[in-house]
Amino acid sequence: MPGEFDFIRRFLSHFPRARVPVGPGDDCAVLAPQRGALCVTTDAVVEDVHFTRAAFSPEDIGHKALAVNLSDLASMGCTPRWFVCAMAMPKDFPARELSGLARGMAALAREHRIALVGGNFTSARELSITIAATGELSRPPLTRAGARPGDLLYVSGTLGDARLGLQHLRSGVKRGAAVRRQRRPEPRVALGRLASRFASAAMDVSDGLAQDLGHLCSASRVQATVELERLPMTPAVRKALGPEGALAGGEDYELLMAVPQGRGQAFERACARAGLRVTRIGHFSEGSGWVCRDMTGRVLPPPAGFDHFRAPSAGLTLRNSKAKPVTLLLP
Amino acid sequence: MPGEFDFIRRFLSHFPRARVPVGPGDDCAVLAPQRGALCVTTDAVVEDVHFTRAAFSPEDIGHKALAVNLSDLASMGCTPRWFVCAMAMPKDFPARELSGLARGMAALAREHRIALVGGNFTSARELSITIAATGELSRPPLTRAGARPGDLLYVSGTLGDARLGLQHLRSGVKRGAAVRRQRRPEPRVALGRLASRFASAAMDVSDGLAQDLGHLCSASRVQATVELERLPMTPAVRKALGPEGALAGGEDYELLMAVPQGRGQAFERACARAGLRVTRIGHFSEGSGWVCRDMTGRVLPPPAGFDHFRAPSAGLTLRNSKAKPVTLLLP
Repeated sequence: MPGEFDFIRRFLSHFPRARVPVGPGDDCAVLAPQRGALCVTTDAVVEDVHFTRAAFSPEDIGHKALAVNLSDLASMGCTPRWFVCAMAMPKDFPARELSGLARGMAALAREHRIALVGGNFTSARELSITIAATGELSRPPLTRAGARPGDLLYVSGTLGDARLGLQHLRSGVKRGAAVRRQRRPEPRVALGRLASRFASAAMDVSDGLAQDLGHLCSASRVQATVELERLPMTPAVRKALGPEGALAGGEDYELLMAVPQGRGQAFERACARAGLRVTRIGHFSEGSGWVCRDMTGRVLPPPAGFDHFRAPSAGLTLRNSKAKPVTLLLP
Repeated sequence: MPGEFDFIRRFLSHFPRARVPVGPGDDCAVLAPQRGALCVTTDAVVEDVHFTRAAFSPEDIGHKALAVNLSDLASMGCTPRWFVCAMAMPKDFPARELSGLARGMAALAREHRIALVGGNFTSARELSITIAATGELSRPPLTRAGARPGDLLYVSGTLGDARLGLQHLRSGVKRGAAVRRQRRPEPRVALGRLASRFASAAMDVSDGLAQDLGHLCSASRVQATVELERLPMTPAVRKALGPEGALAGGEDYELLMAVPQGRGQAFERACARAGLRVTRIGHFSEGSGWVCRDMTGRVLPPPAGFDHFRAPSAGLTLRNSKAKPVTLLLP
């Protein structure tokens, strides 16, 4: 088995040399930001919580570990620049799987031009990857707190696919678009930057729209109304989960955006020109929390959110998402 | 049991509000650096690798998780500014222990004026804390690569205490200065900043001087000679471990520094004025690797280093350090 420094060399060999004053190998990396403000985030993927080694390839795991961080950077409207990667892995972790992890991560890093500048390896009982990523802002950040009454509510892409993919993996289906969304979430980095020219607030949908929209409303002190029939879903998700399932979702890594009414059309046109899919699914008003409206105009209470540290209780069948793989994928 | 958001609130309540454009609670923190270059590092502490919950209080664990990162910042000579903290913990982790973790971490953060600006909570089978910390540079960074032939070799504080503390914990002794060094390493932040005015290179001693000096020599392409009788040790370490044990060490979190000969006296005077203990333990010359010289002038090969991913082999009794608690503390 290779030693710690062989592991580090092997891992780094998959990434281009970072163009920073001091890169990997010293006690710290040294960065030279060009603009004023930086965004920084951290997120982890843990074996048997966010992935299993049976259902995910090493490349999938490496991709996902970086993707969840890029999604946070995307939601602030910043340009990804640098990341550090802390790996915890069993002592018998195979070197070829480490290369797979690095390949998956390096491919996504290349796509989004973010440089690996440092990291850490430690032994642990279970595999986990914790990344901290930094981006540069050229405009004020898109926080969760900027939505105002009257703003329009947009969401990118489609909802519920990752949840459906998880169901497929659980039942032994290992291919298809939904499974790919679960294994290889695509952070909406280009959209986040574009949205920073139009939106008043944004966040990424990692725990399911049901929960995350609640956070946005609470941070902005507004109420949201979601029109159920407008929720963007693939035919497969519509059939298998329906709008309630898509709302509960989890791991969609789409962006929720609040856009002032007068900027809505320009925003939609800019997205169309850039080939980025967004759907207006509702609006904000005075108040708190959020409600759904069905096709008949009837107002429904939102499905319950998701909480990483609570077991799903029997009465809340929609309590699904990020951590659900623990229940769903483990034998 | 409290839920994820209660956990986050409880954890954050122990830290002062960060004075940054956007702090914890959004998808990213937003930082506004004042100077040009930043140092960034990441390091993790993992249950049963870097600590056990039997031998370490929650406060100790929280302290240590931040201390190992501050030590990296110290070794570059920068001023700590911000950190993000990713926690992975079992679902049944008690809320009062979380408060303890936060208290230990917050106390050290206050001491070094570093602000918690964001983080992440996830469930996991074992407790681990991964921190990414950022500091600002006002001078060129102290890398590992700057040592030159003729430079003097300094080390801060005393060596081997943390290793002795580990031995004490292993044998059931839970008090004393050595145990405290193991549980509550003190990052040499003030010294790092001072050294940046004098030194040509620096690094922190986390895996034992035996291994870490090798890295410094290799990065700087120089050879070091260590005079064994000059190694700074407490009487307890001298008696229990001797110079070989102190060299193998592990988790000392002292600083190794290379200082140009002409600057040595000024450096020593500045340290003395600031009340910071440093000892000249050798010098650098042309060549590679490093050697020891004993009191008689005899040159000895250095003890072997430590590797996180290799089990200590029988012939290398000095292979001890960072990861050794796995072997030493587990039942």
